[in-house]
Amino acid sequence: MSEQSDIPEVVGDESGERLAAGVSIGAGAPVLAFDVGGTDIKSALFDADGTVLGLRRTPTPVRGEDSPARLIERLAELADELRAQHPDVVPQAVGLVVPGIVDAESGIGVFSSNLGWRDAPMRDLMAARFGMPVAFDHDVRTASWAEHVLGGARDYANAVVLIIGTGIAGALLVDGRPYTAGGYAGEIGHSPLGEWPCPCGARGCLEAIASAGAISRRYTEATGDPVDGARDVIARAAAGDDTAARIWNEALDALTMSIAQLTAVIAPQAVVIGGGLSRAGSALFDELRTRLADRLSFHRIPALVPAELSGDAGILGSALRARQAVQA
Amino acid sequence: MSEQSDIPEVVGDESGERLAAGVSIGAGAPVLAFDVGGTDIKSALFDADGTVLGLRRTPTPVRGEDSPARLIERLAELADELRAQHPDVVPQAVGLVVPGIVDAESGIGVFSSNLGWRDAPMRDLMAARFGMPVAFDHDVRTASWAEHVLGGARDYANAVVLIIGTGIAGALLVDGRPYTAGGYAGEIGHSPLGEWPCPCGARGCLEAIASAGAISRRYTEATGDPVDGARDVIARAAAGDDTAARIWNEALDALTMSIAQLTAVIAPQAVVIGGGLSRAGSALFDELRTRLADRLSFHRIPALVPAELSGDAGILGSALRARQAVQA
Repeated sequence: MSEQSDIPEVVGDESGERLAAGVSIGAGAPVLAFDVGGTDIKSALFDADGTVLGLRRTPTPVRGEDSPARLIERLAELADELRAQHPDVVPQAVGLVVPGIVDAESGIGVFSSNLGWRDAPMRDLMAARFGMPVAFDHDVRTASWAEHVLGGARDYANAVVLIIGTGIAGALLVDGRPYTAGGYAGEIGHSPLGEWPCPCGARGCLEAIASAGAISRRYTEATGDPVDGARDVIARAAAGDDTAARIWNEALDALTMSIAQLTAVIAPQAVVIGGGLSRAGSALFDELRTRLADRLSFHRIPALVPAELSGDAGILGSALRARQAVQA
Repeated sequence: MSEQSDIPEVVGDESGERLAAGVSIGAGAPVLAFDVGGTDIKSALFDADGTVLGLRRTPTPVRGEDSPARLIERLAELADELRAQHPDVVPQAVGLVVPGIVDAESGIGVFSSNLGWRDAPMRDLMAARFGMPVAFDHDVRTASWAEHVLGGARDYANAVVLIIGTGIAGALLVDGRPYTAGGYAGEIGHSPLGEWPCPCGARGCLEAIASAGAISRRYTEATGDPVDGARDVIARAAAGDDTAARIWNEALDALTMSIAQLTAVIAPQAVVIGGGLSRAGSALFDELRTRLADRLSFHRIPALVPAELSGDAGILGSALRARQAVQA
């Protein structure tokens, strides 16, 4: 499942306390926004201008029997602190995005191994506790939609967004809207390509060979040599390390194969790539473009473009969703 | 590209002159409908009750420089004959579906190797010649949509339809509507899985190993033994022929892999399988169900259901599209 929102831990760094310069969700109702991952909660208030206030990153409560209730209490505390800091900004709705299998339409957290829940009616529980409308959605799908509204996917109504970090999560935009299939769509990281094992229980999953996490793990397993993330493996490959070159080549081949399949089946106008691995820049994008053109024939090859909102796409999308809940 | 509408030539038989018993497009305006393939044209008139009249199969004109114009003249002749036979049925619109890359929105036949055209403004040319509204669309996408309206996909708003015959063509239904991506979506037959060559110029395409055409061709290449289609190879595999068993097993593995990828990425409620190979029945469907469940983990496994309209889905869809053109 798409359980990684905390991608920057793998490659790169992020303070988590500042949005990328110049990013605003635009004018509208003030809202509270949360982006909850397995490790951290990002929380913030957005004012009527769309400016973020009090953005911070705090630990996610340890999972357990009453995980949904404990999480909601923690979010309420964070909200109280934000409102105390900014008494003049009165939020009209709350956005909450989480990993796992999410049925946004019914407001249910169907399954999350990181957060430890099953079939939790999160939207209704949140609305009861907060006393205002709540938007509840999947973190990566929401982040992808934010890339469509504000970021790298803004020119493309039909796009696939791939977030490559600890794992690989994806989301499909169809006519500018997330395509969800009851929460099950977009599991590109767990789309099979071969026979290698994957911790999810399936075989040959893309993320077990091509995520930033898999690249550094496979290198360490092959050499016994701990590395500083996928970026380090890529640098070693460029410097002539054969093992690093093989592992990076296998990751690129698997990503190319997956994108080629997406191209044949969904024919997106663009594949927007974010997450830690996207910071490899041309070492990733140019290689994928060359390999993709080599693999395919009559197909319409999508633009490969970097995500622009980085780790902020989730909280920005959460705020945008909350704005929709106000309007609803 | 999805160039096969004439699937029954590979496995099974079909008179092409009778619809499956009881199938009607329902009450509405009388319409003319054409389903043009690389080999044959199916033509018919549908009356106000939705009953098919004069359904026949005639050869497609040989491709050449002026293919679009020659095809349209041939369709006009067929229409004249139908109208002479049924003078009391006055069609209000025409439906035309063709293989290749079709941009239904703009009414353009972008590319068809079988029909020999590029960027032909078929809808406008047809409308000028016929003097009535024309619906122009892709054969397999239209057939898939007909399966949604009248056939095996009727219970599923989100489905993938796979037509497995000479080649493998696919179509995606999203919220009950064909998802087209400018005509490029649904090329599941040319989605890559490996490194084997494909006549399309790409490598590892599904249809080069798992279509009915590929199964019989690969068997004959391996043994020098001509076979009577994929059905014969499947029968030989069941009777203990090792080569047949290997080729059928490789086809099943490739189909399983493709459906597993669709499941992870698009999560359709159902995969509807038609075309000649679907007549293999439980030898195909039960095997795919077992292998799919074995390959995947948390994924929502789609129902695998046989298409119901068989070779008639194209002409029925063409008539349904023509009805929409009347309303428009």
